[in-house]
Amino acid sequence: MSYDDQNIFAKILRGEIPNVTVYEDDDVLAFMDVMPHADGHCLVIPKEAAVGIYDASAEALSATILVTQKLANACKTAFNADGITIRQHNDPAGGQEVFHLHFHVVPRHDGVGLRPQTGKMEDIDVLVANAEKIKAAL
Amino acid sequence: MSYDDQNIFAKILRGEIPNVTVYEDDDVLAFMDVMPHADGHCLVIPKEAAVGIYDASAEALSATILVTQKLANACKTAFNADGITIRQHNDPAGGQEVFHLHFHVVPRHDGVGLRPQTGKMEDIDVLVANAEKIKAAL
Repeated sequence: MSYDDQNIFAKILRGEIPNVTVYEDDDVLAFMDVMPHADGHCLVIPKEAAVGIYDASAEALSATILVTQKLANACKTAFNADGITIRQHNDPAGGQEVFHLHFHVVPRHDGVGLRPQTGKMEDIDVLVANAEKIKAAL
Repeated sequence: MSYDDQNIFAKILRGEIPNVTVYEDDDVLAFMDVMPHADGHCLVIPKEAAVGIYDASAEALSATILVTQKLANACKTAFNADGITIRQHNDPAGGQEVFHLHFHVVPRHDGVGLRPQTGKMEDIDVLVANAEKIKAAL
């Protein structure tokens, strides 16, 4: 699969559509998932145009996992989480829906399953409030 | 949570219990999951004593994700997979069962869900045959 620069994360990186950012540096952007599986669910992406884990450069992949680590720690604190689930999906068969490499960071609590995907976007105020909690913990 | 050097992956790293290795270098070991969620399901771990993503050094985490990438590509080829699912679980609430940092690499096929955990170990001959396929594709 070749990289399609009209994917939604490419548009976010170009500032063509908005996002609720929690972290940004020269190589990596992290922002709230608009259809979260749990409060605080965020996404970490390289700025490099990589479809998935297959084709990312070593530099982009390393930078992305190190920011994923930062966010795992921040989310644990911000949401008083009992655990963190990291997922990274490749191809539709692997669970991928947007074809730009991304890592999901999902805060978890004991006995609470992941929210099923409903297709409904989270309220923007909730996303912004959760992003503020994460940024405060970074 | 502090690192318990009696966890099963620590024992594997010390050679105290066997594993079906697919890749090893100075920093990382990868081996077959003995209770696979799909054929070819393997695990990538740093040799460093890290409980999860929270406490891994940047060097160990980068080395581990780069080997995870190698295995994602190899598994895609080896099993003619339609996709690859990567998961990394932290704490029991996050899905973690062995308290040494590990990434799951799971080959996926269109329309085929993950096998549920049954607690039954896969036949060793199957694990060895799948490891050989992965090694041939590395």
